[in-house]
Amino acid sequence: MTAATRRHATQIKLVARPQGHPKPGDFAIASAPIPVPGEGEILVETTYLSLDPALRPRMNEVSAYAGAIPLHSTIPSPALGVVLESRSPLHKPGDHVSGMFGWQSHATVQGSEARRIDPERAVLPRWLSLLGLSSFTAYVGLVELGRPKPGETVVVSAAAGATGAAVGQIAKILGARAVGIAGGVAKCRGVVDVYGFDACVDYKAADFLKQLDAACPDGIDVDFENVGGDILRAVYDRMNQDGRVIVCGLVSEYNIDGGFPPGPSLWPTVYKSLRIEGFRASRYFDRVPEFIDKALEWSQAGLFTHREHITEGIENAPQAFVDMLVGRHFGKAMVRI
Amino acid sequence: MTAATRRHATQIKLVARPQGHPKPGDFAIASAPIPVPGEGEILVETTYLSLDPALRPRMNEVSAYAGAIPLHSTIPSPALGVVLESRSPLHKPGDHVSGMFGWQSHATVQGSEARRIDPERAVLPRWLSLLGLSSFTAYVGLVELGRPKPGETVVVSAAAGATGAAVGQIAKILGARAVGIAGGVAKCRGVVDVYGFDACVDYKAADFLKQLDAACPDGIDVDFENVGGDILRAVYDRMNQDGRVIVCGLVSEYNIDGGFPPGPSLWPTVYKSLRIEGFRASRYFDRVPEFIDKALEWSQAGLFTHREHITEGIENAPQAFVDMLVGRHFGKAMVRI
Repeated sequence: MTAATRRHATQIKLVARPQGHPKPGDFAIASAPIPVPGEGEILVETTYLSLDPALRPRMNEVSAYAGAIPLHSTIPSPALGVVLESRSPLHKPGDHVSGMFGWQSHATVQGSEARRIDPERAVLPRWLSLLGLSSFTAYVGLVELGRPKPGETVVVSAAAGATGAAVGQIAKILGARAVGIAGGVAKCRGVVDVYGFDACVDYKAADFLKQLDAACPDGIDVDFENVGGDILRAVYDRMNQDGRVIVCGLVSEYNIDGGFPPGPSLWPTVYKSLRIEGFRASRYFDRVPEFIDKALEWSQAGLFTHREHITEGIENAPQAFVDMLVGRHFGKAMVRI
Repeated sequence: MTAATRRHATQIKLVARPQGHPKPGDFAIASAPIPVPGEGEILVETTYLSLDPALRPRMNEVSAYAGAIPLHSTIPSPALGVVLESRSPLHKPGDHVSGMFGWQSHATVQGSEARRIDPERAVLPRWLSLLGLSSFTAYVGLVELGRPKPGETVVVSAAAGATGAAVGQIAKILGARAVGIAGGVAKCRGVVDVYGFDACVDYKAADFLKQLDAACPDGIDVDFENVGGDILRAVYDRMNQDGRVIVCGLVSEYNIDGGFPPGPSLWPTVYKSLRIEGFRASRYFDRVPEFIDKALEWSQAGLFTHREHITEGIENAPQAFVDMLVGRHFGKAMVRI
């Protein structure tokens, strides 16, 4: 479909601040005239939207994380799209691009805010999964901050999720042991069978701590933390001397009314010489091209893969987002427009 | 006094596990025959004992920090002494040495466990204060982990204490702003007047948070944490993007029955890219000579000084230790034997 044949853009807006877990009614579908690009801008028709847990804290009234999303505005989000019109020298109609196009069928952005992607190097949805922001986040967090050494044990929570799956595979590529934590037997099996982790521990199982001990007989050197709460505490208690806790996200804490709960005692940081380090991938964006080259090379060598959970239709984005937050998906969640 | 004239060694032993704050009755004075050095060992007569907050957690039944002190054993501690007898090629009688000689008048240790000191370079007690483990801890913690840049704001709690005083002065030498936190107006004045901090904030004052905000108009880049609890939380809330929380000690939490309380939420580590890193100075001990050269150079240039709080008599060590823990001293606490 082109701008000529579709006269209105479809948008998903945030219309209520979620209380606890978001529900589809916190969102609404809206229609708006297709925007006209100004000087330096491009008009993009979106093809795929990324669904990311990090959106959740931004739906609160106040968010220190990248700013709160204003009520009645379109949900900001990484996405892929095709350039329909261009008033920027950087792109021409027909180019495939990625950028923060949001949950909408059409977006107008500065040409410099879109990055050209090449569908010949990898099919479209791969640019949001294997090569997307979640994978890149895993890469910089693990390589720059976690710095696992060969033979060390890396534990990653939300291991069946888009970031977690990449963390474990990159840990293996770096010569470390990869232990995932995920919810349920089926997901854990997928983490081992599909992504090649050495082990995956079911946090919903009654014997979770026993499973964790069995999977980490030499303790834990790197924790790549996506979840927080009780899962973080269990891992933290098992950190080795000189361990590193890399805080990427705390998805179990995003829906708690009244704000984020306290973290673990800092005393072990002293006697174990631990480092706890949080990060956002955006500060490393100059390294995206380096990452894409490596990810494609690893993928071709059979070392790096990604499952995708694709929901059809922009109108289903809210429900898919809700489902992703409670862990109903295996692999990178996205929506095909 | 020499081994020939004093036939018995005096020792201070731990005889009860402190409940909350230690009291002098948790310790007892004991007498023992002066030990005879074996092959490779030296007999040392102690001259000065160091009093260190880090001893407190080791007085509990279980201590992950350098191991619990067994009941009815001598208190382990850094100290200075003179070699009385030597069966080690490394030292000869009359040498001044420092080492973990403990709270006792005489100690027998392996020659390799004593480090020769030169009273010509600095008078004796300086080797426990300006040049001692507390100062060295400040040095490696700040230089290696805190890494303040010129113009950044470094906050240090327990600023009137031995480590804190050194942290602020080294921060200034590195070109950063130094803000201390200490208890009471007199101590705060000393931190500014004696040690040259840019400001010192009184945590006992009703307007503590207002004072802290006024002293840190551009936020806080490095927190050198000695205290923990509410003071840590106040500083943590004010950390800047890319801030570093260096955890050296948590003295306000050592006396809490039931164990260490939770730490602050880890969510700010993500959205501010914070690093929280704990350490023990012992892992950097190969750098002690480098530190001593620098500390003496800074001292001669008038940039680095240290007050000492010296208690006379080994029998007064327990009370002096108790007083130090609750902050009754200004400067490095030690005992002259």
